[in-house]
Amino acid sequence: MKLLKATANLSIQRSVDSGTDEQRAAVQSIIADVRKNGNAAVLKYTEKFDGIALSSILATSEEIEEAYTLLEKEQKEIIQRAAANIRAFHEKQRIQSWITTDADGTTLGQKVTPLDSAGLYVPGGTAAYPSSVLMNVIPAQVAGVSKIVITSPPDRTTGKLPPAVLVAANEAGVTEIYKVGGAQAIAALAYGTETIPAVDKITGPGNIYVALAKREVYGDVDIDMIAGPSEIVVLADETAFPKEVAADLLSQAEHDERACAILVTDSMTLAENVKLEVEKQLETLPRKEIAASSIENYGAIYVTDSMDEAVDLVNQLAPEHLELLTEEPMTLLGSIRHAGAIFMGRYSSEPVGDYFAGPNHVLPTNGTARFSSPLSVDDFVKKSSIIYYSEKALRKNAEDIAAFARMEGLEAHARAVESRLK
Amino acid sequence: MKLLKATANLSIQRSVDSGTDEQRAAVQSIIADVRKNGNAAVLKYTEKFDGIALSSILATSEEIEEAYTLLEKEQKEIIQRAAANIRAFHEKQRIQSWITTDADGTTLGQKVTPLDSAGLYVPGGTAAYPSSVLMNVIPAQVAGVSKIVITSPPDRTTGKLPPAVLVAANEAGVTEIYKVGGAQAIAALAYGTETIPAVDKITGPGNIYVALAKREVYGDVDIDMIAGPSEIVVLADETAFPKEVAADLLSQAEHDERACAILVTDSMTLAENVKLEVEKQLETLPRKEIAASSIENYGAIYVTDSMDEAVDLVNQLAPEHLELLTEEPMTLLGSIRHAGAIFMGRYSSEPVGDYFAGPNHVLPTNGTARFSSPLSVDDFVKKSSIIYYSEKALRKNAEDIAAFARMEGLEAHARAVESRLK
Repeated sequence: MKLLKATANLSIQRSVDSGTDEQRAAVQSIIADVRKNGNAAVLKYTEKFDGIALSSILATSEEIEEAYTLLEKEQKEIIQRAAANIRAFHEKQRIQSWITTDADGTTLGQKVTPLDSAGLYVPGGTAAYPSSVLMNVIPAQVAGVSKIVITSPPDRTTGKLPPAVLVAANEAGVTEIYKVGGAQAIAALAYGTETIPAVDKITGPGNIYVALAKREVYGDVDIDMIAGPSEIVVLADETAFPKEVAADLLSQAEHDERACAILVTDSMTLAENVKLEVEKQLETLPRKEIAASSIENYGAIYVTDSMDEAVDLVNQLAPEHLELLTEEPMTLLGSIRHAGAIFMGRYSSEPVGDYFAGPNHVLPTNGTARFSSPLSVDDFVKKSSIIYYSEKALRKNAEDIAAFARMEGLEAHARAVESRLK
Repeated sequence: MKLLKATANLSIQRSVDSGTDEQRAAVQSIIADVRKNGNAAVLKYTEKFDGIALSSILATSEEIEEAYTLLEKEQKEIIQRAAANIRAFHEKQRIQSWITTDADGTTLGQKVTPLDSAGLYVPGGTAAYPSSVLMNVIPAQVAGVSKIVITSPPDRTTGKLPPAVLVAANEAGVTEIYKVGGAQAIAALAYGTETIPAVDKITGPGNIYVALAKREVYGDVDIDMIAGPSEIVVLADETAFPKEVAADLLSQAEHDERACAILVTDSMTLAENVKLEVEKQLETLPRKEIAASSIENYGAIYVTDSMDEAVDLVNQLAPEHLELLTEEPMTLLGSIRHAGAIFMGRYSSEPVGDYFAGPNHVLPTNGTARFSSPLSVDDFVKKSSIIYYSEKALRKNAEDIAAFARMEGLEAHARAVESRLK
């Protein structure tokens, strides 16, 4: 793990992964094909990329029932308890419509309405992600979205979805689950097929093809964000425990070879001890190779001259996950301007929030916490302005409005207002 | 103007304007050039596309002072009154950080922080848009964005910006104004040049090159939306006045040949009278040619069998602007699921909201009101989750959290939690 003396002036270059020209062209061609040929194209790409020929893409009720028999009772109950925590947190995010009125009879306001439909992408690959199901479904439900569908790539051998994913979806109340992954899933959700409905918004992380497809359909439908690899920054002082810091860095590194784990500290002693601990703990990890590659290529320990400089550096990094492992994390909270989720103190290790505490784990990656937020109920509602002018209010303001219109050279606007007062 | 019998099952095909391959390639090449060559590239494209060789792109304080002498005093005051209304409305949109606590010592919350910087694009062309300045700047200011810059294309002959734009910017408190338009402006705002700072979010409408450039840089910075041509839907019953309906349709049509003006009504009598009035009023409009082309190609009157069917059709259209010119507009408000702004009753003609009433005029176009909202203070803040677990809270939940991690195959996540409790 690299150990570097750093200042807050460290120049951090980052750019969203736009894929290669070949990848972009491939994704555009898949989308065009799915738009034109619907299910036939979806099945073709599922066979090509997921290596399995399916006759039907909808997960059947038998498959959902079978999933329950394959999961331990205890696992089902943990999913239920996590879902309850996630639901309780997201209930706090509901926003209300409001209006204001004045004595002239002017009423202005903002009406909040749920989206009609949402499509949630749950990544597949080597692992199962029941937590992703809960983190995407629950905010959409709390928002009041009436049609929620899930897509996730099928297993290469069985053609089914992981039992934990099916159980999480069913426990959350979603039964429309399609065994489709990749760019073909995004295309199907954006434009619809004979089976899969076109939805208004697509959320959830995926690989580079999923990310490129989301970028491509953005505008025709909404998307949550273009997700990059996961990352953690631990901001620690000399009071932090090297074993715990190292364990947290590794919990991020095991996700993905491109995951990024960074320690920022004003203590050279801590820095050196964490470096040793990371190397030691790596040895016994089941996903050792992935974690080692991540630490090697994207891991770093930055040692600053002061805590102020460390905080500045954190704000520059704008991390997806930020842990404050300092003696008094609350005193730093006000200085943190950019972070997806902020974990405070030694008992708030990142996995506490990944699954269980309640806040969403779909977070802005790659420095986009500068301008993006965790997935939330807000992502599944939209607002309409309400404008009511009485005759009195219009008479009072018509001259101003017409003059403003004419200042912009828009005579028909001025006349529309004046037509009411003749 | 087309007059059609319609049902709510009318199939409405829409798709975002993705430009031609040539346009996309041109925009990509401009962005790459500006990223590499900074101001030199910006000046080159300004000369090429805006037809003027500038020595400096920053609007000088002399230019701003001169703008005040070119504007009538009354015009300046109207801009000030509009700004006050817009500010008052957007102040209501502020959201607060919040936390929840429980007896185990679990504290969860959501911290709201303004973006550091925003770049606001004000379109140019044949008209000046001081209202666009106010509608973009004010929500960013209310949100607390500390660095706000404006870009807008310079006049082809003088190399300056319209006086009304400069005055509106200055009245709103923004003095960093760059005389740059098109894709080169978006590239400069996204990646910075020697003069123009890289910002976190770019908002504001523009032509197809601006829209394509925003799509291209999205992800590296945030954008508000990809705007299409403006549109209005008037939902009216037999009580509406044909002259007023026609005037409102034409106020939309005069914007742009691609603007779209639609009447939906259950009254054939109204439909026929509006059609006649549109033709009559068109004759005397200064922007007659633009409005006539818009009405010819994108205008329509849909007559439905019932008001319920009319409301369904409106929800399918998901219009940017919706006027409810019915006897009791309030009774319909709850049925309107998708609209950018809803204007209620005959004294709330659309121009009331375009400039003056207070709600934002940057609205979702082209059916994207299905999933998008008016530009608001929310666009200029982002949220961070806060997670604090006490030792007691972690002891209570660690087993669940570790088991969930292992269910997803992530052993290092489980160990990170367990490392605290040894």
